[in-house]
Amino acid sequence: MKRIGVGLLGLGTVGGGVYKALQSQEDVILKRTENLFEVRSILVKEKQKERSVNGVQSLITTDFGRVLEAGVQVVVEAIGGTEPARTYVERALKAGCHVVTANKELMAKHGVQLERLARSRKVQILYEASVGGGIPVLGTMGHFLKTNRLHRISGILNGTTNYILTRMSREGASFEKVLAEAQQKGYAEADPAADVDGFDAVYKLAILCRLAFETDVPVRQIFREGIRDITPEELELVRKLGYAVKLLATGEQYGEKGPVSLRVGPTLLPLSHPLASVDGVYNAVHLEGDVVGDVTLVGRGAGEKPTASAVVEDLCNLFRLPPPRLPLSEDSLLLPAGEAGGSRFICMRLGNREVPDPEQLCQRLEGIGLEVVDAVSSRDGVAFILRRWDPSYTSMVMTELGLEKSRIISRPIRGIIFDQERQSEMERVV
Amino acid sequence: MKRIGVGLLGLGTVGGGVYKALQSQEDVILKRTENLFEVRSILVKEKQKERSVNGVQSLITTDFGRVLEAGVQVVVEAIGGTEPARTYVERALKAGCHVVTANKELMAKHGVQLERLARSRKVQILYEASVGGGIPVLGTMGHFLKTNRLHRISGILNGTTNYILTRMSREGASFEKVLAEAQQKGYAEADPAADVDGFDAVYKLAILCRLAFETDVPVRQIFREGIRDITPEELELVRKLGYAVKLLATGEQYGEKGPVSLRVGPTLLPLSHPLASVDGVYNAVHLEGDVVGDVTLVGRGAGEKPTASAVVEDLCNLFRLPPPRLPLSEDSLLLPAGEAGGSRFICMRLGNREVPDPEQLCQRLEGIGLEVVDAVSSRDGVAFILRRWDPSYTSMVMTELGLEKSRIISRPIRGIIFDQERQSEMERVV
Ligand SMILES: NC(=O)c1ccc[n+]([C@@H]2O[C@H](COP(=O)([O-])OP(=O)(O)OC[C@H]3O[C@@H](n4cnc5c(N)ncnc54)[C@H](OP(=O)(O)O)[C@@H]3O)[C@@H](O)[C@H]2O)c1
Ligand SMILES: NC(=O)c1ccc[n+]([C@@H]2O[C@H](COP(=O)([O-])OP(=O)(O)OC[C@H]3O[C@@H](n4cnc5c(N)ncnc54)[C@H](OP(=O)(O)O)[C@@H]3O)[C@@H](O)[C@H]2O)c1
Repeated sequence: MKRIGVGLLGLGTVGGGVYKALQSQEDVILKRTENLFEVRSILVKEKQKERSVNGVQSLITTDFGRVLEAGVQVVVEAIGGTEPARTYVERALKAGCHVVTANKELMAKHGVQLERLARSRKVQILYEASVGGGIPVLGTMGHFLKTNRLHRISGILNGTTNYILTRMSREGASFEKVLAEAQQKGYAEADPAADVDGFDAVYKLAILCRLAFETDVPVRQIFREGIRDITPEELELVRKLGYAVKLLATGEQYGEKGPVSLRVGPTLLPLSHPLASVDGVYNAVHLEGDVVGDVTLVGRGAGEKPTASAVVEDLCNLFRLPPPRLPLSEDSLLLPAGEAGGSRFICMRLGNREVPDPEQLCQRLEGIGLEVVDAVSSRDGVAFILRRWDPSYTSMVMTELGLEKSRIISRPIRGIIFDQERQSEMERVV
Repeated sequence: MKRIGVGLLGLGTVGGGVYKALQSQEDVILKRTENLFEVRSILVKEKQKERSVNGVQSLITTDFGRVLEAGVQVVVEAIGGTEPARTYVERALKAGCHVVTANKELMAKHGVQLERLARSRKVQILYEASVGGGIPVLGTMGHFLKTNRLHRISGILNGTTNYILTRMSREGASFEKVLAEAQQKGYAEADPAADVDGFDAVYKLAILCRLAFETDVPVRQIFREGIRDITPEELELVRKLGYAVKLLATGEQYGEKGPVSLRVGPTLLPLSHPLASVDGVYNAVHLEGDVVGDVTLVGRGAGEKPTASAVVEDLCNLFRLPPPRLPLSEDSLLLPAGEAGGSRFICMRLGNREVPDPEQLCQRLEGIGLEVVDAVSSRDGVAFILRRWDPSYTSMVMTELGLEKSRIISRPIRGIIFDQERQSEMERVV
């Protein structure tokens, strides 16, 4: 048995969960890894706050220096944000401690530098909990898909937005209403921007793509679109067409060491797509590699226990798995997230104008040279799917339909398998 | 760079795939693991057979002894079946070679003994490809869920039967017709028993449950039911009720070191269940642990490339991950797969008798004290869901409906979340 001293930075949802899990799983951890993790110091902001965990008062400090003096080999960072988290993580690494963190913003923005620092000090920094909560996606990529060239990653990486979209779709309720309820119940933050505007998903996508494509993309440069403009009417039209809308994060690489394209935004998925049925607060990641084909991982993307599970697994793996590689190509090209080329869902609200018949609509659009896959209408809107989309079509469509002043929403579609292709696809993969 | 000699037993679908993947991924493997795997000898049955891989003729032998003399540190077993595979694997381990195998029958029946032998010789035996093809489920359990107590595993573990059920359900075709077509195209074996009668899934379930519950269950003792009796009519009724039928393998453990219950058989899943939409040849495993909640892994369960991916990942991991643990409790109790207690789908063909109205049917069944969740009828059958089932209900139901000579089919339902529960479930997990 090896005793390992742990310093905990933060005792909120994640920090508290980690403390409890180290207690409740102590015997399992000991049996399976021969390690005993002892929390020796806990850094918080407010010393006097009531805590949901018992017996920690003597460990609590507001002075980071005390943590490093407490005889710790590992520091778990569960504060969040970039400062002071970044400074503390750097100081821990420089002091020769391993670091485990759940902080996606920190790892997205400063991960490369922190990993280099860790390497130079012969320690490790692991961050499984920062992406997909309890889903072991970073570990899977690093240890079980490492002989594959990954060329595409698609993920539902934010539980709050997935929960909002699921409820909007099931109840026909508006974004504002569902968000307000979620905030009231504590499922969404008072300032929801990080979630609903896609920042959180962008951080996670940056981390995933760094590992998959070995390329470091500044988070500012990642195309990002949130879910604020999605209406229950749009979701109804989407469902009628046989799709689901998800806030999807996608990363693609075109050829080994080739250019990459990253995007976070509302995306249609055919209901048969493995990610389409990932509802509520579940997260999921779909990985495509050149030998394995595709692998999808689904699980709880946040919450005290799933996140603690990932942190505690990392804690053990510090002492049993080889350190992650860090072979970055410095010069990868970031392509603009393609608005053109792929299939696209187009949706228009008509207000009090007459709703055209879907069949006539198809004919008229085909008359101007567009390839329409399907069209539907609702009480006050129309929607259709074009096999190939180009932004220049916007004005063509509006003119043809006499809807110059309408708002036109267009969303990409992923994983389309049109009917005739589906059968052969199903057979091909046998 | 380390050169590692590999002996390949078998050059069929899996062996050929492994040979090709070691070539196509050579640079990726070298970059990420600093290993170079060299196939130095290949054992086959028929020396003169045409091979789908080039340049192997000089490596091919029909004498196993030659493989061990070729300077190999690892033997990949891709022959299948128990003999001579078992003898060869034992000889390889005794000669101090690591072994990687894709052979579920071998590992289900003799895994414990082979792992003990490996341990005593200070070598490893890895078998990721034996369960779920390209899905890294064994690795995930061993390395990323090891601090969790797993209490339930549910899997779609056989691609052939999932493909047959998917086509039957989509096309309304009979089992015999779809099977015959699948055989003609080479997607199902000439003797389909291993797949359609559930043996293959039983082997995989035994392996999964050994790792998850640390208990070794003889495959003969696992409850097993195949898919031969499923009709398109039944699938139609199931769909009308909002469910999908899958050949599901389930393992549960009641309390740490508690008794276990294992079962392979057709099972209904609500369409919102993460496994319900796993179609075609895809496999999936749903794992439930005490900290992580649940994690689902989906991917291609068979085929040359996905299986080769798993074997090649194992090959690399032999030299970089700690050996799997083997802490078996010798005395676990195997419970009979429960026919009673849970919710159940009941389906009857009526032949030329009159089909009762579903609402009346509910009332009549409730009249005799049964709790009916839902009922539907088709042209020549009825089906309903009972919240709790007991085998003694069979005769009660038949008598009440005046259907004494009908055949009654009953199937368990997993992961039911009835409507009023679903909402709170969704919120609970945030
Ligand atoms: N919540 C989740 O489900 C989840 C999931 C995955 C990843 N994460 C990530 O995990 C991290 C922590 O999230 P959380 O939900 O646990 O946050 P939280 O509940 O707000 O807890 C933050 C903790 O950090 C402490 N803290 C804040 N600022 C500090 C400072 N300047 N100095 C010292 N301590 C400070 C707080 O102390 P007081 O208690 O004294 O206020 C609190 O204990 C974030 O990076 C988040 O993105 C969270
Ligand atoms: N196929 C899949 O997608 C898949 C997926 C996961 C796991 N697996 C497992 O992988 C294993 C191999 O399956 P497979 O599909 O590759 O089988 P396969 O295509 O039938 O190939 C079997 C190979 O083993 C050789 N062989 C058979 N009997 C032998 C003997 N007595 N001595 C020496 N060589 C012998 C054969 O030699 P010849 O070529 O000379 O006939 C052939 O090359 C099985 O355990 C299977 O369950 C298969």
